[in-house]
This record gives sequence, structure tokens and C-alpha cells, in this order.
Amino acid sequence: MADKNSIGQYRDFFVSYLESRTNFGEPQNLYEPITYILGLGGKRMRPILTLMTAELFGANPKIAMDAALAIEMFHNFSLVHDDIMDDAPLRRGKTTVHEKWDLNTGILSGDAMLILAYQFFESYPPDVFKKLTILFSKTAIEVCEGQQYDVDFETRDDVTIPEYLKMIEYKTSVLVAAAMKMGAIVANASDSDADAIYEFGRNLGIAFQLQDDYLDAFGDPKTFGKQVGGDIMVNKKTFLYLKSLENASWENREGLLHLYSIKPEDSTAKVETVKSIFEESGAVDETKAEIKKYTEKAFATLDQMNLPEANKQALLQFGKSLMQRNV
Amino acid sequence: MADKNSIGQYRDFFVSYLESRTNFGEPQNLYEPITYILGLGGKRMRPILTLMTAELFGANPKIAMDAALAIEMFHNFSLVHDDIMDDAPLRRGKTTVHEKWDLNTGILSGDAMLILAYQFFESYPPDVFKKLTILFSKTAIEVCEGQQYDVDFETRDDVTIPEYLKMIEYKTSVLVAAAMKMGAIVANASDSDADAIYEFGRNLGIAFQLQDDYLDAFGDPKTFGKQVGGDIMVNKKTFLYLKSLENASWENREGLLHLYSIKPEDSTAKVETVKSIFEESGAVDETKAEIKKYTEKAFATLDQMNLPEANKQALLQFGKSLMQRNV
Repeated sequence: MADKNSIGQYRDFFVSYLESRTNFGEPQNLYEPITYILGLGGKRMRPILTLMTAELFGANPKIAMDAALAIEMFHNFSLVHDDIMDDAPLRRGKTTVHEKWDLNTGILSGDAMLILAYQFFESYPPDVFKKLTILFSKTAIEVCEGQQYDVDFETRDDVTIPEYLKMIEYKTSVLVAAAMKMGAIVANASDSDADAIYEFGRNLGIAFQLQDDYLDAFGDPKTFGKQVGGDIMVNKKTFLYLKSLENASWENREGLLHLYSIKPEDSTAKVETVKSIFEESGAVDETKAEIKKYTEKAFATLDQMNLPEANKQALLQFGKSLMQRNV
Repeated sequence: MADKNSIGQYRDFFVSYLESRTNFGEPQNLYEPITYILGLGGKRMRPILTLMTAELFGANPKIAMDAALAIEMFHNFSLVHDDIMDDAPLRRGKTTVHEKWDLNTGILSGDAMLILAYQFFESYPPDVFKKLTILFSKTAIEVCEGQQYDVDFETRDDVTIPEYLKMIEYKTSVLVAAAMKMGAIVANASDSDADAIYEFGRNLGIAFQLQDDYLDAFGDPKTFGKQVGGDIMVNKKTFLYLKSLENASWENREGLLHLYSIKPEDSTAKVETVKSIFEESGAVDETKAEIKKYTEKAFATLDQMNLPEANKQALLQFGKSLMQRNV
């Protein structure tokens, strides 16, 4: 159910539904950017998780489609507004909305996407509608809070590890968790199962984000989607960086602080030195241990679920395949 | 029920509830701007309408409080994002959010306000929750569309009167209409009464906005809240302008088009000339007739409502008092 083939099937199924439900009318200047960003592709991981979870809990994934669409619409809303905040010129290799159109279009089309996301729940009966909408709002507020923490951290030099973990939890993993829980809700899973799948998604999401931090520095440039060393170049305070500061020798600590205060034109030497400090300080090993811890926490929630063993195995396989990128 | 005293009571009642429900926690940089903009005051007309309508339909206005809060939160969300789009330095005589903080804070705090607005409906049971949320989303999308039309019209020279009326309907009057309908919904009014009060609010809202256009040019500087002539100075295509273009002599038409292509430093002469063209073309009389038409349309919906005569009189008096500004 969660092998590569079926993930591809979920994706095709989802994308054709997405296309059928996103033919908007007037005013064109409001809706064209929405169709544009939704059409840029991406892995569609979150909506696939909603469909997959619904099926694992015994429902026809079709009934999860509108919830999946709400999740994907929200995710793209956050990309449009985040790209403005980060002044990013490119998204998935294409011009960002505020660059292709303008700032006002980015703001207003983003706002409309957030509202459209809520509207996709309207096809569910009142009880389910209320459950989904409450979960959605809670998640959406947390994503905003996570984004705010991320912005705040840029100018703070006293960010703690627990604060960093909370930031990545809010900014990325709660949406993964909510995507899965929505699948459970539309499948009428018990509250306890829905909560367990949420915890599965939340912990796996944190593990995934920590792994992303790791791969950003140590991944294979051939397979990692982004520029390796990118976080170091922009002095991003990742788990690796914060752990290194905590653990490093006095000399390495001073060196790291200095390197994170500059942005040299040619960053090759800086990236190499920072990476060697990450290694020497033990931060790399601790990051790997933390990834393992959250992955195992996710897998442990499977025991609490009232699911056929085969379905648990499917979730386990899915989690493993997600975490078996080039570590 | 809708005299000046009781409106003041509704306002006090609402503001103290607002204050009790808007104590947010961390992150401070996300929530401080929200408390700030909500605290700037304003007439609180929309939430008052929700409370008043609930009471007119036989409910304790207390049960309408969360819906009223959602409406006020949404209205303030739209102010924060609109002020960015208009690059406005001041709102209610105070610094706008994006000026006091920065662009990113304005975007992100606005996003959070839109989500918080939805959350206020969560205190209602599922059926009412769904009705309110559907109405809210529909209204919110229309407000975005209205804002987009307003932006589009700035650079278009072929805006028609029906397009202009649709723009002001979406940008301002649907929220007034929804505020009243929510009062009816929480009071368990019949669908037909809820629809009738929506039409009352929608038509009165259009009449009010047309009157605002009129007062912007011909109001008494002592009592009109904004700078008289302000729309003319910024070449805003209002009902008066569009009607004048439609009706004016060839000479006046050319004169008007020219005056709306310039922004002289001292605009006194421009404003006076434009106003005389508005008068001569008959646009002033037609605007007054249009205001009267929409006001009467609003009042005519009272006949369809299943309400005690005294309550209908209260709505009539409220409508009249709203429209008896210095015309």
C-alpha cells in the first residue's frame, strides 16, 4: 500500500483531482497565480499521506480527497507568503509568485488560498467538518508561529536546542501530522487511533527535518535537491550548528561564531571548515542519534494503533523509505 | 434596541469581551501587532450588527459574541493586509502595522488573524459551526475578490458602473451582510429570515458605500472623518466619476479625463473643477438616487422577515440613522 508504485498512484490520482477542482473564474489576477503555484508540482507528499492514511484506516481514499486538497492548498499558501518574507526569486526552479507578478498579488492570492483551503472541507458532514476545521486551524496557527520563531531566530544569538526543535516541529512537522490525522478522521478512525497517527507524523516529520539539516551539509550533491552547504552559506542556525556551539572546544566555538558572522563571496573554505567543526564537536553523531530517536518514537506509536499488522508494516515501510535518503 | 444608547452598550459589551479573548502568548512578535491593531478602536460597527441582529431575532446577544469577534478579527486582518497593499502609513490616526514593525510582520500577523477569526466559531455546535464557517469563507473570498477588482480598476480606463457596484459590494457590503446574517444564524432564525437580513445588510452596505463616495467629495469637512476631496486627489474612479464620464458633455468629459491624469501639488482648483463637473453632469443627482434606491431595497426586505413589528422598526431606525450622515 505504501510502496513506490502505490505512492505514484496516489500522486496521479491526487493531481488529476487537484486539476479538476482548481478551475477558478474571475478576477483573473487573483486566481491565475493560484493555478500557477499549484501547477509547479512538488512531491505532493502531504496530500498523499492523507489519502494513504485514510486507506490504511479502511476508507476509500476518494473520500479523503477534499481534505488532501485543503492540506496541499494550505502548504502552497505558506510557500507563497514565505517566499515573500524570504525574498526568494525561485520556487521549484520557477519564478516565485511575487516575482512573476508583484508583492500585492503575492499577498492577496496567498490570502485567497488560505480561505480556499478551508472551503474544501465543506463537502464533509457537520461533525467531520468541525473536527477537520479545528485541526486545520490549530495546525495553521502553529505553522505561523513556527515561521515567526524562524524569523526571530535569525537575529537571536541565544537560541536553545529545545527552542529550535519546537520551531521545526511547528514550521514543518505539524502539517505532516495533521495531513495523516485528517486521513484517519475522514475514515472514522477512533480518537485514539487518530491521535496515534498524529504522533507518528509529528515525530517522523521532526526526524525528516533534522535529516534535512544534516543532508544540507553532508548530503550527496547528486541526489540532494538543494545546494549542499546552503544553510552554512546563509549562516542558518540548524541543529548541527547549535549542537556544535554547545559541544565544541573553546577554539572551535570561536571559529564557528566568526564563520557564522561572515558571508564570503567564495564560500568553499568556509563550508569545509564549518563541516569539520560539526564533525569534530560530535554534533554530527548527536544529530544522527536525534534523527534515530525521533524515527523510533514515530515507529513506537504503531503499537498503540488498532490496525491490521499489514497496515502497520506499510506505515513502517513508508517511514523507513522516507528516512532512507542519502544519509 | 438600536438607538444610540443601546449601540453604545453593545460596543462596550463587545470591547470588553474582545479584550478578554485576545490575550495571546508567544511568539510575541506575532501576537503583539494583533493586539495593537485590535486596540486601535474604530466604530466596531460590524460586530455590533451581529449582536444587535441576534437580539432582534430573540437571542441573548452573548451567544453572538464569538461570531462578532470573528467578524471584527477578519475586518482587522483585511485592514492590515490592505494597508500593506496601499502602502498606507496611518490607520485610525496611528502607525500601520507594517510601518510600526515591518512588511513580514504585517503579512504574518495578518495571516494569523485570518486563522484566529475561524477559531472563534469553534464554540458553536457542529451544525451552527458549519453554517457560520461556510458563510464566513464565502464572504472572505468575496472580500479578496473585491480588493483585487479595486486594484485592477486603478490601471483600467474602461471600468463600467455594474463592475464598480460589484466591487464595492464585495469589498465592503458583503461583510456587513454576513455580520448580520451570523446574528440571525446563532439566534436560530429560519433560513428565509437569515437570507432576508443578509439582503438588508448587503443593500444598506452598498448604499452606505455610495454615500461615502458622495461625502468624500461633498461632505462637511467638520463632520466627515476623512479629508474631503481625497478620492479626487488620488484619481479614484468612484461612482460619481464613472457616472460623470457616462453623462458629461464632450468638453466636460475631456476635462475630467485630463484632471484624472494629473496629481497637482496644490489640488484645490482640481477638486473644485471636478466637483462642478460632477454636479453639471447630473452625476450628483444620480448618485443620490442610487443611494435612495439601495436604501429602499434594504428596507423592503423587512417585509419578508418574520419579526415583531417593533423589531422591524428598530432595524428601520438603525438604517435611517446610518444613512443620515451629512448628505
